[in-house]
Amino acid sequence: MTEMMTKEELEAGLRKIGAERYHHLHPFQKLLQDGKLNKAQVQAWALNRYYYQANIPVKDSFILARLGTVELRREWRQRIIDHDGSETERGGIEKWIALTDGVGLDRAYVESGEGILPGTRFAVDAYVHFVRERTLLEAVASSLTELFSPNVIGIRTKGMLEHYPFISKETLAYFDKRPVQAKRDSDFALEYCLENARTPEQQQAVLNALRFKCQVLWAQLDALHFSYVDPALTPPDVWRPGVAETGREAA
Amino acid sequence: MTEMMTKEELEAGLRKIGAERYHHLHPFQKLLQDGKLNKAQVQAWALNRYYYQANIPVKDSFILARLGTVELRREWRQRIIDHDGSETERGGIEKWIALTDGVGLDRAYVESGEGILPGTRFAVDAYVHFVRERTLLEAVASSLTELFSPNVIGIRTKGMLEHYPFISKETLAYFDKRPVQAKRDSDFALEYCLENARTPEQQQAVLNALRFKCQVLWAQLDALHFSYVDPALTPPDVWRPGVAETGREAA
Repeated sequence: MTEMMTKEELEAGLRKIGAERYHHLHPFQKLLQDGKLNKAQVQAWALNRYYYQANIPVKDSFILARLGTVELRREWRQRIIDHDGSETERGGIEKWIALTDGVGLDRAYVESGEGILPGTRFAVDAYVHFVRERTLLEAVASSLTELFSPNVIGIRTKGMLEHYPFISKETLAYFDKRPVQAKRDSDFALEYCLENARTPEQQQAVLNALRFKCQVLWAQLDALHFSYVDPALTPPDVWRPGVAETGREAA
Repeated sequence: MTEMMTKEELEAGLRKIGAERYHHLHPFQKLLQDGKLNKAQVQAWALNRYYYQANIPVKDSFILARLGTVELRREWRQRIIDHDGSETERGGIEKWIALTDGVGLDRAYVESGEGILPGTRFAVDAYVHFVRERTLLEAVASSLTELFSPNVIGIRTKGMLEHYPFISKETLAYFDKRPVQAKRDSDFALEYCLENARTPEQQQAVLNALRFKCQVLWAQLDALHFSYVDPALTPPDVWRPGVAETGREAA
């Protein structure tokens, strides 16, 4: 039988999963931040990750629908506002479009999701289904990858600006506010999980939800790496270099 | 606007998708049937595909629940019987276990699904979700990859028996009856789709459902190829060569 952990032990367990399984360890991430990818490979990354970004408010809406109290919904709705923006402030999705604009991809094509890899679609859809079908505690716990993102974002942004002439600070504006938002969101979600995991089984479910989410992120980079880097075996029906290019990318 | 096709044109469109997108074209499939994989790679294939096999009766049960008439359910339930077997006849899932037994994998480990690739899980789960959430017509159409399987099964079985000393005819017993079953099942499903796709939109939905299903199969081989062949980047938490081996494989 698994024994009950203290909150500190559970948090340490979560952080250990991040240290071992978060996608900062994926070879594609390293190639991206070290400037080892060509422009088409960076385009493929931006195009596919758009589908992930576009589904974040969808999964957060399902969580919102299940939170059950005014207080919790007030807290969680900020995530949706951050991604969808407002009349006065661009949201995360719009900023991601600035990124795909910046690398010269046609906006309508990106928004259509047409050319994304099946591996991207299956992984992202698995995430949305997970937050609908598992317990609320697991749904919240699956957001905890944000505990590990602030550090990675800094390294990636710095590396990309340094190495790619087609990447500007404006192109990467999406990432400017993410570290602060991610820290605020993950502080709250972590506290919620530590507080609401009240049996050994629930604690294990929290750990497993984070493992699952790490797989969702990892599998997206697997698909990109396999299809566009090595062996660059692009499956039928997906985006190929040169498709949907606008020729209007950032200088 | 898309125009209405004749039944012959729709069938030709479906067969064209198979010719261009079915997983017989995937490099992993070719390596498998040409004897170019090592034993661990064949084990990885058998282990991961078990999860697909195990979910076939699940997806067929969802279709069964939606068919709406005695006649249609009588027809479709045969698929479930074929996979789950009976007191007197081994089903497809049991025969797949004979295959994983034959290549020396621990049965409890295989059945647990523990070591499968996230890419396998996400693709198979996407298939189950698809038949629950799309129209019944699309759910039925997604089974039409069976139109293309009989031919591929013959080539693969012959190649595997010829090239791998650890593969016996008994190990591959799963495939003995599949060509006949697949032909019977896909004849019925094809007729159903040709009959029930009564608008240009429904015809396109049928074509897209088959494209989707080809992606489900293709993505599973992508994951295997990427993780166990090239670059053999095995993600965290999944089966590695040597794990769960029984040492009792077929001579």
